[in-house]
Amino acid sequence: ALLCMNGAGNLMDFLDEPLPDVGTYEDFHTIDWLREKSRDTDRHRKITNRSKESIWEFVKSLLDAWSGWVVMLLIGLLSGTLAGVIDLAVDWMTDLKEGVCLSAFWYSHEQCCWTSNETTFADRDKCPQWQKWAELMTGHTESAGAYVLNYFLYVLWALFFSFLAVSLVRVFAPYACGSGIPEIKTILSGFIIRGYLGKWTLLIKTVTLVLAVSSGLSLGKEGPLVHVACCCGNLFCSLFSKYSKNEGKRREVLSAAAAAGVSVAFGAPIGGVLFSLEEVSYYFPLKTLWRSFFAALVAAFTLRSINPFGNNRLVLFYVEYHTPWYMAELVPFILLGVFGGLWGTLFIRGNIAWCRRRKTTQLGKYPVLEVIVVTGITAILAFPNPYTRRSTSELISELFNDCGALESSQLCDYINNPNMSRPEDDIPDRPAGPGVYMALWQLALALIFKIVITIFTFGMKIPSGLFIPSMAVGAIAGRIVGIAVEQMAYHHHDWIIFKNWCRPGADCVTPGLYAMVGAAACLGGVTRMTVSLVVIMFELTGGLEYIVPLMAAAVTSKWVADAFGKEGIYEAHIRLNGYPYLDQDEFTHRTLATDVMRPRRNEPPLSVLTQDSTTVEDVETLIKETDYNGFPVVVSRESERLIGFVQRRDLILAIKNARQKQDGVVSNSVVYFTEDAPQLPASNPQPLKLRRILNLSPFTVTDHTPMETVVDIFRKLGLRQCLVTRSGRLLGIITKKDVLRHMAQMMNQDPESIMFN
Amino acid sequence: ALLCMNGAGNLMDFLDEPLPDVGTYEDFHTIDWLREKSRDTDRHRKITNRSKESIWEFVKSLLDAWSGWVVMLLIGLLSGTLAGVIDLAVDWMTDLKEGVCLSAFWYSHEQCCWTSNETTFADRDKCPQWQKWAELMTGHTESAGAYVLNYFLYVLWALFFSFLAVSLVRVFAPYACGSGIPEIKTILSGFIIRGYLGKWTLLIKTVTLVLAVSSGLSLGKEGPLVHVACCCGNLFCSLFSKYSKNEGKRREVLSAAAAAGVSVAFGAPIGGVLFSLEEVSYYFPLKTLWRSFFAALVAAFTLRSINPFGNNRLVLFYVEYHTPWYMAELVPFILLGVFGGLWGTLFIRGNIAWCRRRKTTQLGKYPVLEVIVVTGITAILAFPNPYTRRSTSELISELFNDCGALESSQLCDYINNPNMSRPEDDIPDRPAGPGVYMALWQLALALIFKIVITIFTFGMKIPSGLFIPSMAVGAIAGRIVGIAVEQMAYHHHDWIIFKNWCRPGADCVTPGLYAMVGAAACLGGVTRMTVSLVVIMFELTGGLEYIVPLMAAAVTSKWVADAFGKEGIYEAHIRLNGYPYLDQDEFTHRTLATDVMRPRRNEPPLSVLTQDSTTVEDVETLIKETDYNGFPVVVSRESERLIGFVQRRDLILAIKNARQKQDGVVSNSVVYFTEDAPQLPASNPQPLKLRRILNLSPFTVTDHTPMETVVDIFRKLGLRQCLVTRSGRLLGIITKKDVLRHMAQMMNQDPESIMFN
Repeated sequence: ALLCMNGAGNLMDFLDEPLPDVGTYEDFHTIDWLREKSRDTDRHRKITNRSKESIWEFVKSLLDAWSGWVVMLLIGLLSGTLAGVIDLAVDWMTDLKEGVCLSAFWYSHEQCCWTSNETTFADRDKCPQWQKWAELMTGHTESAGAYVLNYFLYVLWALFFSFLAVSLVRVFAPYACGSGIPEIKTILSGFIIRGYLGKWTLLIKTVTLVLAVSSGLSLGKEGPLVHVACCCGNLFCSLFSKYSKNEGKRREVLSAAAAAGVSVAFGAPIGGVLFSLEEVSYYFPLKTLWRSFFAALVAAFTLRSINPFGNNRLVLFYVEYHTPWYMAELVPFILLGVFGGLWGTLFIRGNIAWCRRRKTTQLGKYPVLEVIVVTGITAILAFPNPYTRRSTSELISELFNDCGALESSQLCDYINNPNMSRPEDDIPDRPAGPGVYMALWQLALALIFKIVITIFTFGMKIPSGLFIPSMAVGAIAGRIVGIAVEQMAYHHHDWIIFKNWCRPGADCVTPGLYAMVGAAACLGGVTRMTVSLVVIMFELTGGLEYIVPLMAAAVTSKWVADAFGKEGIYEAHIRLNGYPYLDQDEFTHRTLATDVMRPRRNEPPLSVLTQDSTTVEDVETLIKETDYNGFPVVVSRESERLIGFVQRRDLILAIKNARQKQDGVVSNSVVYFTEDAPQLPASNPQPLKLRRILNLSPFTVTDHTPMETVVDIFRKLGLRQCLVTRSGRLLGIITKKDVLRHMAQMMNQDPESIMFN
Repeated sequence: ALLCMNGAGNLMDFLDEPLPDVGTYEDFHTIDWLREKSRDTDRHRKITNRSKESIWEFVKSLLDAWSGWVVMLLIGLLSGTLAGVIDLAVDWMTDLKEGVCLSAFWYSHEQCCWTSNETTFADRDKCPQWQKWAELMTGHTESAGAYVLNYFLYVLWALFFSFLAVSLVRVFAPYACGSGIPEIKTILSGFIIRGYLGKWTLLIKTVTLVLAVSSGLSLGKEGPLVHVACCCGNLFCSLFSKYSKNEGKRREVLSAAAAAGVSVAFGAPIGGVLFSLEEVSYYFPLKTLWRSFFAALVAAFTLRSINPFGNNRLVLFYVEYHTPWYMAELVPFILLGVFGGLWGTLFIRGNIAWCRRRKTTQLGKYPVLEVIVVTGITAILAFPNPYTRRSTSELISELFNDCGALESSQLCDYINNPNMSRPEDDIPDRPAGPGVYMALWQLALALIFKIVITIFTFGMKIPSGLFIPSMAVGAIAGRIVGIAVEQMAYHHHDWIIFKNWCRPGADCVTPGLYAMVGAAACLGGVTRMTVSLVVIMFELTGGLEYIVPLMAAAVTSKWVADAFGKEGIYEAHIRLNGYPYLDQDEFTHRTLATDVMRPRRNEPPLSVLTQDSTTVEDVETLIKETDYNGFPVVVSRESERLIGFVQRRDLILAIKNARQKQDGVVSNSVVYFTEDAPQLPASNPQPLKLRRILNLSPFTVTDHTPMETVVDIFRKLGLRQCLVTRSGRLLGIITKKDVLRHMAQMMNQDPESIMFN
């Protein structure tokens, strides 16, 4: 048996790419994972064999083995750097809407006052170097006129930024809009969208992301950062033929890049890897897990060495709580989970309805106007409320924070007990002062505003992530609930529910923790992340202490949201856009392969080629008359016994090549797929031998195979198509598109919206 | 097309288990994942359909949907409790070797002195209530006679514990020996080993684990805890028919249970989940990820509420370091990585060689004697050295710890600067005192002792994990290197390498961190874990700060060890025992299905059944003469066109059943696999219709399919066998065993050692 192995070599020549472009894919087509894997194994085998020949080849094989790590390192460095630059630029430009630093105009408000020595700790954000626009222009600071001027300039800057953003996207890189995660999920599942991860998209997305976030729109940078990191990944793939020439290997790199993107978005490397595993990736071999982890860590440490937040912290929202939580608090936590689930449902339904309207009505024709109008409304409504005026991440950061003794913000305006002489970090619950009540009203208004405006913002033609707005909604709701529970516990500490754990003078309720739990619940409701969500939140707090509240809220939110609809926002957008994405859900219907395969009963028979009786002309006619991606090759039309499968693209290239070479192949040459073409009389035209482009191991199932098995095979092996046989006779073909259409049909959805693959 | 769906129902009747036991598996056989999945989908479909019929059925369907979470909760609770009980018992029995608590004999040394009020902080471990055996018996404490008596009793207790352990294992549960992880990996990949996860194994493994660890042998409880948790999982599976009747679903639960096991072993729930994902599990759908996380958390919190370590900490080795690490330190960290890799290679080679000797020589016939001898040697050599006398986890804990100002142990015997007036947690590097040098010698001896004895210990017929011994080896080496670097930096702070970061009076080197890095490196070298290793270590320290040193060591160790051999210790043991485990490595050889399939060239043709011309007697003869697990069914022997595949077991059961029922089926009855048996004259014997046990969708590949694809299909779809066709004609069959044998052959290994499946 081992002898015939060597003889088998020539049967696999179709993998050797004898013709240029054979084995590549067209835009908006699905890749064949098995074939890509085969090609990589082949390449690897060649390099290994050659490495024994000379030192130089051995070094080359080592370089090849290490190239994966090099790519990871580069991705980590570049995406960390980009994230740092984006953070710095957003900081500066967000503050630019309100004023400017006189000592150096490129300083943000914080940096400006930080470098000033006239700043006191209590008034950290007031220093003479930082001037609001009205102050700079008119000299007044507090008058009504100054307020109106500041208001006007705030709106004007916002409009300018968003106009710039949407124009850049429109003109230079239409793929730079949106969050990018639905498309990246689709690409990772094996779809080709040329240019989606290109250099141009990378550049424009980075720039417009800064503009979009700075404009004060209700959007975040987390999703787009994943897209940016994947663009980096794709860029570095082109350095190594191992990755650039193999769509399967390229997707391994992209999975790791997605992890690096989330890692820098939150400063949570482990969470990033789990996000990539749980939410984004399709195939995630263990090797990729380890490399993703490496890329995520490099990215996180690069970001930290840039230190955009000036606090030497890796994480976006660093919090430290000093009080444990109590069992009774699980009730409000679970309620926050319910709220998160309801918000998720509302957001997904509202946003999808609005996006569908955008796609189907006149609205979609004026993307620039839409962005301008939404920015205008956002800015006009946001300015009067201090909680919406500032950037959303600052808001979340403040809501997460526990009130220290020295905290001077409105949210921490508690009435202090004059006898208090405890250490700073263990402040008992105190009665709320007027500032807190004022803050509660403003937060409630901010909550309604955020809920409504986010639905209309996500999906516009600018880069927009929804992690931050979702978390903001949850954090506001959580903080309100937290303050309510805290005040209830303070004023009614004799109630049975508070009696055991909340004595007067004790620090028992942490409103910041409620904000964090609420944020987790809302983010979970929208994205349906589970483990990665909890791990990201865990990395923010850095303690296992609070993992139970977070889990309780995340589980509740997912269950509540799932009860209204199984799809997360990314899946909903994938379906809205009709991408051919085969999701991981179980297919539970009782259909068989025979119900799905084509040709259907009333359709003409399957277009097949025969192994030794088709002419070049026949093939050309078949290609012209059909648009199938490939054709089965059978022994003869009578026996219908399957030999192999030939790709349309390869067939076209092979015939074109043969005709160009002029070696006697004419229209009535016979095409041979057999191993040896028979000796023909000289008068007959030269035959065309095409066995090398024939796939001799096409995938087959019997007509009785349950569709759940077929779906499983398509998903796990990443097939493009599968042939259906009965008792050895070819009956029909099932393509990925057929599978998707059938699944949509079974779920009573519109099957015609799936893009051609 | 949708119409014929309903008609398709009767084609799938073979899933309905018409006969008792049809669809179950024999011991030491491989399960068919696709079939299990099909059966579960079917079951789910039935419940969903029925749930619309009545309220009661609806409630039942809800219960069914929730049963997974209930099982997870129960697993978490039981494995957390068992881990707590084991920890407490080990603590007590380890101390029992040295002495006893007079106030309450069931107190361990620490508990005894902790409850005493005569204890000072400096002499935490000395209190009058705790008496060594010699003190109790003779009244002397310090004399040579007392030392000898203590020595003698220490050895005696150790021998007693290990004798008890090995006897219990021998008599009651032979499967309770070893770490269990290789077998669990095999089971999770789809193999059946009856009783391996049974109640009896659970009980005996728990008890003997305590005995084995207490006996002072160089072994840990981490691997066996995974086995114990999996036994818990299997136990709770039997509560729900959803899990007990479906081998595929059962394995989902077991994957989660493995996560819970590691979670309680280290107090690292996220690390536990990643360990299960990376090291143990075969299929790990996302749903399982989330449930594993839940089980791991419940287990961790159950353990914490039992609080066996008395410190309210979740983790086994809680450490807090106060000093950052410096770039220059990466050099010793990487050296520790190299050491870890070399240790991993040495351990795997040595241990496998010894275990092979045990299997093949007389040695294997005296397991009790072997355990007694090794325990005796261990105890005799361990007692004189204070670092080997105590339990290994205490040793690791001490090595990980940073020396505080009040630390009184020998390892912290530094010469203090009398002018020192810094806060307690920021002690500058100090010169080592005589105690430290003494400790270094003892640690060096302990290192050699641990390295040698661990190789002989792992694999004996008692429960034994190798996490703790591996970590101990690394921690000792790391601490030695750490102290060396520390003293070098102190005495030569003007050297170029120290100049920039290690001024005199600064706290620049933390020897405890070196110990931790060394432990990670050695554990990585032995198990080849990567992400889960770093995450477990990260959960121990709780800070991202030290993740780079840990990663550097883990990566180096893995690369060094991989350079000497790709297999980790678990894979090596799987291969040694010949379990049919299809590992995730790439198969890169250029063979085709035709090279692997049976029958080979010189063999008799494939044993097939025909669809309508075989008699019951023919079938019975075939069953008697062959030992194949199943037979392909073809249209006729001439055409060789494939209809389906029938399992041997199902065939036997069906014929037995038909003969018992006496409904006219005799030896020369014709067996029909067709949809309709023809009308036969009354004189002919009654035909036996067996279409219902026929699998109409057997998996086929063509003879030209590359073996790398075949391996991929077997792995991803979990097949038992696959039929090989050429142009629609049946050529042969490839079973999982053939694939494994071929892979072993390609790697020049002994192919005959693979167990029959």
